[in-house]
Amino acid sequence: MAHISVPEGLPGIRGLMAVRPETAASLNELAEVLLRGDNSLTRGERELIATFVSSLNDCFFCQHAHGGIAQHYLHCDTFFIDEVKKNYQSADISEKLKALLSIAASVQKGGKQVTGSQVSLARSLGATDGEIHDTVLIAAAFCMFNRYVDGLATWAPEDREFYVKRGKQRAEEGYLNFDPYKP
Amino acid sequence: MAHISVPEGLPGIRGLMAVRPETAASLNELAEVLLRGDNSLTRGERELIATFVSSLNDCFFCQHAHGGIAQHYLHCDTFFIDEVKKNYQSADISEKLKALLSIAASVQKGGKQVTGSQVSLARSLGATDGEIHDTVLIAAAFCMFNRYVDGLATWAPEDREFYVKRGKQRAEEGYLNFDPYKP
Repeated sequence: MAHISVPEGLPGIRGLMAVRPETAASLNELAEVLLRGDNSLTRGERELIATFVSSLNDCFFCQHAHGGIAQHYLHCDTFFIDEVKKNYQSADISEKLKALLSIAASVQKGGKQVTGSQVSLARSLGATDGEIHDTVLIAAAFCMFNRYVDGLATWAPEDREFYVKRGKQRAEEGYLNFDPYKP
Repeated sequence: MAHISVPEGLPGIRGLMAVRPETAASLNELAEVLLRGDNSLTRGERELIATFVSSLNDCFFCQHAHGGIAQHYLHCDTFFIDEVKKNYQSADISEKLKALLSIAASVQKGGKQVTGSQVSLARSLGATDGEIHDTVLIAAAFCMFNRYVDGLATWAPEDREFYVKRGKQRAEEGYLNFDPYKP
């Protein structure tokens, strides 16, 4: 049971967005700009960074919700998403994305954990300042979202297929004007 | 030197907001709603939660920037702000705020660290569901802001008076339509 009263049947962040629409609006705008706005990183790559950080934070809801969205954009299966979470260094992704995931992993531990050599490596593999900026902010934002969802002890469905279906829906509808009550 | 190129002379989050105005707008809207919007927690109490979490995350810029704002709202001095950061349990603040700071400290470690008994204690001292929600989200949001500011290795003035002056200005101007270039 969640630490505060939320509408029945709305898992994860959806219940929280239903009880506090004022903050939900800002949070969804941030997600829209960061994860779907114009960017040289693809939407799939950005959702993969979000999924990876949520997995490091052990947030069940967020890692599967964003894993489902990443899976839709990347046209991959759940095994691929799990492989990136478990061992991104050997996963079938670009060397640049590996370097960005390494930066994201440091951000998850704490801002000061990011080193100049991690940033130099990413840059040598083609990452731009904008991509480095957005990687750090996506990782930082999911340190917020994950703490929000788990800090209030929200409920999360266990069935992985739930997230795959919702992921497709979220990818199609976007984050703006998100209606937490919509089935 | 910051990990990415930012305009000279703009410390902390200001340099980052100058290079990425699209995400700055969402971040400032979130700060406005959370820290200044209608609430049964005072603006001073909310800035104190932000300051405390930023101190736990060892983010020099954020803890002093928001400490300066808290100081303005609370009509207190820097010694009081430091006392709350060092030992809030013995500081001259309400028992309810102490219980909320305890929840914020758990959120800083990780969402799952918040316990039912921490929430029950806060509730027994008068905290509402809304106040518990906002405490968790403020704490979570500063786990983002702190990682954003430090993860990109931004520069921070050392002079405490700088933050006291800017704190008054920010309290008067708010976060919306924040201009990072404004002196």
